[in-house]
Amino acid sequence: MSSNTMVIEEPNEVRVFAPATVANVASGYDVLGFAIDAPGDEVVARFSDQPGLRITNITGDNGKLPKTVEGNTAGVAALDLLRHLGLTDKGIEMEIHKKMPFGSGLGSSAASAVAGVYAVNMLLGEPLTKKQLLPFAMTGEASADGAYHADNVGPSLLGGITFIRSNEELDITQLPVPENLWAAVVHPDIEILTKVARDILPKEIPISTATQQMGNLGGFICGLYNNDLGLVGRSLHDVIAEPHRQKLIPEFYTAKQEALSHGALGFSISGAGPSVFALCEGEENANKVAEVISKVFTDNNFGNQIHVSRINTTGVHVI
Amino acid sequence: MSSNTMVIEEPNEVRVFAPATVANVASGYDVLGFAIDAPGDEVVARFSDQPGLRITNITGDNGKLPKTVEGNTAGVAALDLLRHLGLTDKGIEMEIHKKMPFGSGLGSSAASAVAGVYAVNMLLGEPLTKKQLLPFAMTGEASADGAYHADNVGPSLLGGITFIRSNEELDITQLPVPENLWAAVVHPDIEILTKVARDILPKEIPISTATQQMGNLGGFICGLYNNDLGLVGRSLHDVIAEPHRQKLIPEFYTAKQEALSHGALGFSISGAGPSVFALCEGEENANKVAEVISKVFTDNNFGNQIHVSRINTTGVHVI
Repeated sequence: MSSNTMVIEEPNEVRVFAPATVANVASGYDVLGFAIDAPGDEVVARFSDQPGLRITNITGDNGKLPKTVEGNTAGVAALDLLRHLGLTDKGIEMEIHKKMPFGSGLGSSAASAVAGVYAVNMLLGEPLTKKQLLPFAMTGEASADGAYHADNVGPSLLGGITFIRSNEELDITQLPVPENLWAAVVHPDIEILTKVARDILPKEIPISTATQQMGNLGGFICGLYNNDLGLVGRSLHDVIAEPHRQKLIPEFYTAKQEALSHGALGFSISGAGPSVFALCEGEENANKVAEVISKVFTDNNFGNQIHVSRINTTGVHVI
Repeated sequence: MSSNTMVIEEPNEVRVFAPATVANVASGYDVLGFAIDAPGDEVVARFSDQPGLRITNITGDNGKLPKTVEGNTAGVAALDLLRHLGLTDKGIEMEIHKKMPFGSGLGSSAASAVAGVYAVNMLLGEPLTKKQLLPFAMTGEASADGAYHADNVGPSLLGGITFIRSNEELDITQLPVPENLWAAVVHPDIEILTKVARDILPKEIPISTATQQMGNLGGFICGLYNNDLGLVGRSLHDVIAEPHRQKLIPEFYTAKQEALSHGALGFSISGAGPSVFALCEGEENANKVAEVISKVFTDNNFGNQIHVSRINTTGVHVI
């Protein structure tokens, strides 16, 4: 080795956290998502003498995930990166620690995919930037739900509020995040199968519905750029998915009315549900709003978990 | 009159110009519009000893417009303002000078409505702000085409690029205008009836079409806020109206291909057509693009008029 060579130390082990995400965000069906501070998934990656990528441990999945690399989104995403780098023979072990429920509407499989590919990238000395990891994370998530979408993977990876112009072209923009914008997320203990949430949507919608949604999407984006939370609030309406998917969530409109009457800027379904979210101005209001939403579910005998946080602007990171 | 009273001089006569506008703007069906420098309509308003609003002269309309106040958009808009101000008995004469063709897709009736209401407002010493005039101008335009829409009236009044979240709530935002953004507009000499342009659209569209349009609408808005003309260009696609309305415009796709292959950022139909427009980076490119579009129509024996300008950020003004 010449004396001029710079030696970049590779760590022996990396532990990362990828946050949960709220997709759709009322007015942005299929094109918007944001990250929250918690919950999220952790992945540990370390070098191993045994060639190839292996998963050595999975916790928090109630035994649902196989330990094959191809059997979960973290493995698929990491393997896709290793293929791209020509390093499939590199000996790497992964541990996956699921710290959020499946099928919650909070981007569980996306968080795992992001954590998996990010952990391996960091272990290798960060050959790619965060943004460059996006297609691998998307491939990982697609292995679980069949759709190649960035609306959960994007914000889990990059943090903040992500706008996706095109999944095919991977054309995404990070929107400005008003400092005082908080999310109140409540996850009721019910199960909605992704297939059911998809099939309940109509195939076609009136043009007038599309333009109404376009108006609200544009208003939401303008509100963020202009730091105008009033406009953000007026724009938080979903006329495409919510009118149909709310049928799968007990007392949805009661919860919505409670949230709005207690000052939430807006309220809708997180992803395909069953989690719901409100956007709020300030921590105090977000806590209050989360509490009244939670009470609606509790009063109807549905257990639920509350997650209140600022919009997470960090995304996946080493812990 | 006490010596403390401030006397605001009212002019005896006001002449104003309201610019033509491009609505829809490819990705913003029913929610976007921008103003160009020319053509446009002129309205003169002056005080008269005879009580009430009267139209004394109309030019440039080929005799199509009646001289009754209720017979054209300028009169209806101005009268609606006078009603609001409780001044319907005030003696005011109006002259309307149409300097752009009807049915061009360039917001002719909107420009007249804007010029009419603005001229009278200025004659009266500007009791309302420009933005406050919007509903009266919309009422004026609606008297001609039946639809209460701000996508032409908004930019003709305020200038710039206008985004309409909601016509019902009159919730509009002025988008940033990149300095080097130019419009190349070409009006071919064909007639498209508004009813035909409306009826040719389907009543419903697939959700995937709506989300594609939402992606491009959001990308366009982000591109403007980030001064990213590349993103603006990638976002200038209309998958809602253009695929249907292009059938009414001869050689539409030839013109589009010529515009794009000569460097236009994007190309689509202005409003309901038949005018077409391209957005371009810089004057030189806009002139070139207008020329190649015009040539397509000319080569196919359709006379046409070219209008090249920066995005007009002034809107209606006194001349």
